[in-house]
Amino acid sequence: MTDARGSTPGGVGRGPVENAQLALLVDVAAAPKPGNVDRDHDLAELRIEHFLAGAVGAGEGLRRAAAGAPVGVAFERAVAGMSDQSGGNTQFGCLLLLVPLVRAAVADGPLDGDTVTAVVESTTVADAADFYRAFEHVDVAVEEPPAELTELDVRRGADAVPALRERDLTLADVMARSEGDGNAREWTTGFERTFETAAAIYDDDGPITDRVSRAFVDRLARDEDTLVRTNHGPEVAAEVVERAAAARGDPEAVAELDAAFVETGINPGTTADLLTAATFVALEWGVEV
Amino acid sequence: MTDARGSTPGGVGRGPVENAQLALLVDVAAAPKPGNVDRDHDLAELRIEHFLAGAVGAGEGLRRAAAGAPVGVAFERAVAGMSDQSGGNTQFGCLLLLVPLVRAAVADGPLDGDTVTAVVESTTVADAADFYRAFEHVDVAVEEPPAELTELDVRRGADAVPALRERDLTLADVMARSEGDGNAREWTTGFERTFETAAAIYDDDGPITDRVSRAFVDRLARDEDTLVRTNHGPEVAAEVVERAAAARGDPEAVAELDAAFVETGINPGTTADLLTAATFVALEWGVEV
Repeated sequence: MTDARGSTPGGVGRGPVENAQLALLVDVAAAPKPGNVDRDHDLAELRIEHFLAGAVGAGEGLRRAAAGAPVGVAFERAVAGMSDQSGGNTQFGCLLLLVPLVRAAVADGPLDGDTVTAVVESTTVADAADFYRAFEHVDVAVEEPPAELTELDVRRGADAVPALRERDLTLADVMARSEGDGNAREWTTGFERTFETAAAIYDDDGPITDRVSRAFVDRLARDEDTLVRTNHGPEVAAEVVERAAAARGDPEAVAELDAAFVETGINPGTTADLLTAATFVALEWGVEV
Repeated sequence: MTDARGSTPGGVGRGPVENAQLALLVDVAAAPKPGNVDRDHDLAELRIEHFLAGAVGAGEGLRRAAAGAPVGVAFERAVAGMSDQSGGNTQFGCLLLLVPLVRAAVADGPLDGDTVTAVVESTTVADAADFYRAFEHVDVAVEEPPAELTELDVRRGADAVPALRERDLTLADVMARSEGDGNAREWTTGFERTFETAAAIYDDDGPITDRVSRAFVDRLARDEDTLVRTNHGPEVAAEVVERAAAARGDPEAVAELDAAFVETGINPGTTADLLTAATFVALEWGVEV
């Protein structure tokens, strides 16, 4: 792997902001991604143009991240811009992964687990407060918090900020208390699955959209999807892993899985978040488009 | 029509730059758009991700246009960024229409033919020189110029700049000498077809991608496509108009037309440029996404 940019002779080179927006777009143009909005189909209330508008709207927040703004400031602005479409939450989880990765991409050193962990560890209570404020822009599906954490329920938005301050919790601390969440897990593990999936995309062949589709099914076959578990419970989440493992590598079976998931409202959105983050890393490493 | 922004309660409002990028994206997500890369299919060497990367890469040039940079400076930067992908020319013609429209959108007054004509009339010889320089970033299909205009062949790129200066030609003058070209025609007519098509999109119902697909076929049924004429000659261009007129309004016939155009390499790319410009105007006028 190298960190050479995938620039072409005629162009000026894509920077991390452009690669983050392109990752958001490629992930909705890749297909099949069973159960998600993809190039092949919309879902009932959520259409491809909502994701396109979300990717465009996130630009200003991503630019702030690349310019060195605090993670919370950049994230809240990215979510506010992403939300400027009528489909609801499209890319909140993607941005929670992309913002620290963009910060890591503009830092010294290679884009890897150490660099992004340094970004995570640099977060403050103010970043946590901005993270909570971001929930005011859009409805995000989250699991019921345990009773002792009701005060810190993300759905309280800015109302939870005094409790954050009282307990002196940074954004990294907040993520560490949500380890059942697939995206929070990336924050606490040096983005382990993100980099692993980025390597799979990097090492694969063919158009990037095909690589992303294959990596999505592989990921789905390995880890329970948080959004599926939140919406349908742990048994369905475990069943999705099994079904993806059975289908993987067989395009016809994957297409059938996609149709079945759409039919029954199974939307593995957290896996899609991870794939977007991994696509960003793969683009930064030099995968050509 | 109003110029109210299509912002939602949670969001921060899309400005002209965001709407221009969204127009570039919606136009490749709309389908069918017979003979073009769209949501349903790629072409042999040109894939959807090339358009996604082009739309992202164009952002910096579009931001410069919105900030008041000269049309030529903004256009050349947008083309340089658009070209930073391996598919070749994706959106040169779109940007030639979008850059003056973005300038018009940030000017005083409503976004209409008068405002954009004022932008066109403000262009200088320096803008013309930057337009020629933009051809150095990417191969653009153009018709052979008449013998007396060989010195001003756009394919000469920056080499034609001394001839431009000698003849004191502004970018508006250059466009006026290329009136056989569908995009140049917009420059010389106050973007007549752009605004007419924007009104059709605005007045239509349903998701914006469906409106764009219908407006595309309607446009194709009315005007010869410059790119088709350049690549296949005037007889094929006239035949495309007739076939689109026969198919329009019948989804099955439109799908067959699409398949036939893809099969025979008929790519009405100039009509796609016009639709992108019209989509931008419709978004600025308040069509919701």
